[in-house]
Amino acid sequence: MASPVIIVNFKAFREGSGGRADLIARAARDVGDESGAVIGVAPISTELHRICHHFDVPVYAQHVDGVAPGAFTGHITVDAVKQAGARGSLVNHSERRLTLAEIEASVRALTGAGMESVVCTNNEATTAAAATLSPTYVAIEPPELIGSGISVSKADPKIIERSVAAVRAVNPKVLVLTGAGIHSGECVKIAVDLGTQGVLLASSVVKAPDPASVLRDLVSLL
Amino acid sequence: MASPVIIVNFKAFREGSGGRADLIARAARDVGDESGAVIGVAPISTELHRICHHFDVPVYAQHVDGVAPGAFTGHITVDAVKQAGARGSLVNHSERRLTLAEIEASVRALTGAGMESVVCTNNEATTAAAATLSPTYVAIEPPELIGSGISVSKADPKIIERSVAAVRAVNPKVLVLTGAGIHSGECVKIAVDLGTQGVLLASSVVKAPDPASVLRDLVSLL
Amino acid sequence: MASPVIIVNFKAFREGSGGRADLIARAARDVGDESGAVIGVAPISTELHRICHHFDVPVYAQHVDGVAPGAFTGHITVDAVKQAGARGSLVNHSERRLTLAEIEASVRALTGAGMESVVCTNNEATTAAAATLSPTYVAIEPPELIGSGISVSKADPKIIERSVAAVRAVNPKVLVLTGAGIHSGECVKIAVDLGTQGVLLASSVVKAPDPASVLRDLVSLL
Amino acid sequence: MASPVIIVNFKAFREGSGGRADLIARAARDVGDESGAVIGVAPISTELHRICHHFDVPVYAQHVDGVAPGAFTGHITVDAVKQAGARGSLVNHSERRLTLAEIEASVRALTGAGMESVVCTNNEATTAAAATLSPTYVAIEPPELIGSGISVSKADPKIIERSVAAVRAVNPKVLVLTGAGIHSGECVKIAVDLGTQGVLLASSVVKAPDPASVLRDLVSLL
Repeated sequence: MASPVIIVNFKAFREGSGGRADLIARAARDVGDESGAVIGVAPISTELHRICHHFDVPVYAQHVDGVAPGAFTGHITVDAVKQAGARGSLVNHSERRLTLAEIEASVRALTGAGMESVVCTNNEATTAAAATLSPTYVAIEPPELIGSGISVSKADPKIIERSVAAVRAVNPKVLVLTGAGIHSGECVKIAVDLGTQGVLLASSVVKAPDPASVLRDLVSLL
Repeated sequence: MASPVIIVNFKAFREGSGGRADLIARAARDVGDESGAVIGVAPISTELHRICHHFDVPVYAQHVDGVAPGAFTGHITVDAVKQAGARGSLVNHSERRLTLAEIEASVRALTGAGMESVVCTNNEATTAAAATLSPTYVAIEPPELIGSGISVSKADPKIIERSVAAVRAVNPKVLVLTGAGIHSGECVKIAVDLGTQGVLLASSVVKAPDPASVLRDLVSLL
Repeated sequence: MASPVIIVNFKAFREGSGGRADLIARAARDVGDESGAVIGVAPISTELHRICHHFDVPVYAQHVDGVAPGAFTGHITVDAVKQAGARGSLVNHSERRLTLAEIEASVRALTGAGMESVVCTNNEATTAAAATLSPTYVAIEPPELIGSGISVSKADPKIIERSVAAVRAVNPKVLVLTGAGIHSGECVKIAVDLGTQGVLLASSVVKAPDPASVLRDLVSLL
Repeated sequence: MASPVIIVNFKAFREGSGGRADLIARAARDVGDESGAVIGVAPISTELHRICHHFDVPVYAQHVDGVAPGAFTGHITVDAVKQAGARGSLVNHSERRLTLAEIEASVRALTGAGMESVVCTNNEATTAAAATLSPTYVAIEPPELIGSGISVSKADPKIIERSVAAVRAVNPKVLVLTGAGIHSGECVKIAVDLGTQGVLLASSVVKAPDPASVLRDLVSLL
């Protein structure tokens, strides 16, 4: 069975940039090594190259435009993200929603480049829809719980269960991540027990005074 | 077996507004009555109420925002479209793409109001994704053929076949429409023979000097 | 000197549609007749034609796409809004923001059709920018006060003063409206005393049990 | 009088990434040093940090979101662009249009960070509107000429003249750049003679077999 997965989204938080980005990436590597969990990080695009080259952790872009290289000023291509050294990308995060056609093009471009895709969704129905596109992961994040400190795995475990079932029905190869409000080892354990591969989270690690100790807590019950 | 379906999208064409909108709606009713095909029309939102009240044909909005009534200036709610007398709405047309979350919310709101939803998609993968959302129809329209005069049913029948198969695999209750470049009875016949319920089209009818005769040709081989 | 102006935005409120839309349009006509103020209404697009044809009041669309008639499914052209009988349109409302290029195209299209444009803006700088485009009105609405019940004319009169000054500096022919939180005759009086031509408002009239009495209060100190 | 300015936008061109990005940045530095012109580069965001740190040339982001650091996954903050070492950013490029409110917020955030802003516009009216926001530069690029190889300075010098006049009327401190189709020293000379500070260009340099020789030609008549 594959190792549990934790992806830490740095968003555009000040606490996730510069020296703090380094500190969190280093913590991800250390706690990943200690625990056997896969702990990835998703820094802002301007720091993607730097983090990829300095830390031996899985690195994800926060967003990618599913276009081929060309006249797309201000866009981020899969090509650029790959050259920067990333393993994959978040796609359709709730703070950067895409059209269905763009999600499909992004997943296809990432897969074509041998990279991972993590498609974020907001409910059971969109999770099933995203799963038909064959991304590596679908990360289900009920928007009302993002950044709330209230874990989806405790507040609404049914949405996780139903999402896992929906994904298995349409495309059983797709792995599911639990997002929104995840902040403790117990949240992660519930998420894994409900059939998901792990979690996508942000503020509870990125804004923590000591990210390493939060990460240790997150993997403590696995 | 259900009757074949033809939906005529008036877009924002001048030839599909005012007196011309009336003429096409009347032709849709007449040819529908003669042939037994279901011929619907999708006028611009400002003419929706008028067309619904003057012509006994299925009328669809061209776009709907899947939000509940509220502080949404410049949006078109399902509530408003229903009050206007429409039977349903196009959703995610290639000229008005939506996020996945918006498509899901629109389909859910239409279904909740007892209305039909016609989700437009651009390829086989997005067609399967849309079908998981349980709309009434998915209309597959390869963007490069829209308005081209080259019928998808002739230029790329495989995409229709694969889309029908993909929809049946994930949600067999969803009906498929063929879009893009449809202009003759032969196009419609091929579309139906490939397993779709009918066609979504625009310019070949709306811009025709005599829309009724084009509609008669479209249903002639059914 | 021109009469003071009140534009009532029905948004997508349930209380601003159907029979309620009629009631508010009738109140606008009656109170306008009694007071000499120009009281316009901005209904949802699906009701634009109906309200224009049944009530002798200035009617505005809530949104317009600045494109010529053509292949623009789900868009609302100036042509369509004019055919429906509207006098003009809101442009760039905070709930339906547009790119700068779209705002300019919309104002130009409305002006070219002999119609009025009401460009909504969020602060002094964008108000000046909008004024260079020569719309009929710029309506300054600090977003944090919209729907708050706290009137911008009381909470932040300086933003109104500075906006009026900025507009006069770049394009003195453009009239300014005060928006956000307007709910009483005193708010309107302050708005006019600060040099604006009137107000753009929504919930305080649309959601009122008796819209006519609110409108009478709004014009009471003019 | 300030030196003429050339900004080379790498877009998402393959020929403007990786080793080619280095080659063009080096050419910009060399030709800038030889000629006294200010030659800046605008690489894709994932290469911004690398180019800033390896080449002593003015570097611009291609796009920036005018938000403060925070929960904005997939966005690019001014803070991030500054930390990467950039001098400023393009704003509202035709391939990445923004709302008026976003343009204003981006220019304000860049100015507040002591950085330069280059607001792209599509015609004379939007150029004047952008100038009221007090960016460092407005770059006027008629969209139909972008990437065309037909220089705006030859095809439509009047639009440049009128834009310069409009900017001087509303905000004479703002500098104007000429964009779209620029490819030779003659184009640049005309642009400067028409009163602009220089040019914004892309494909003619980025896709050239020898970018340095194109840059030398561009500055040859200054």
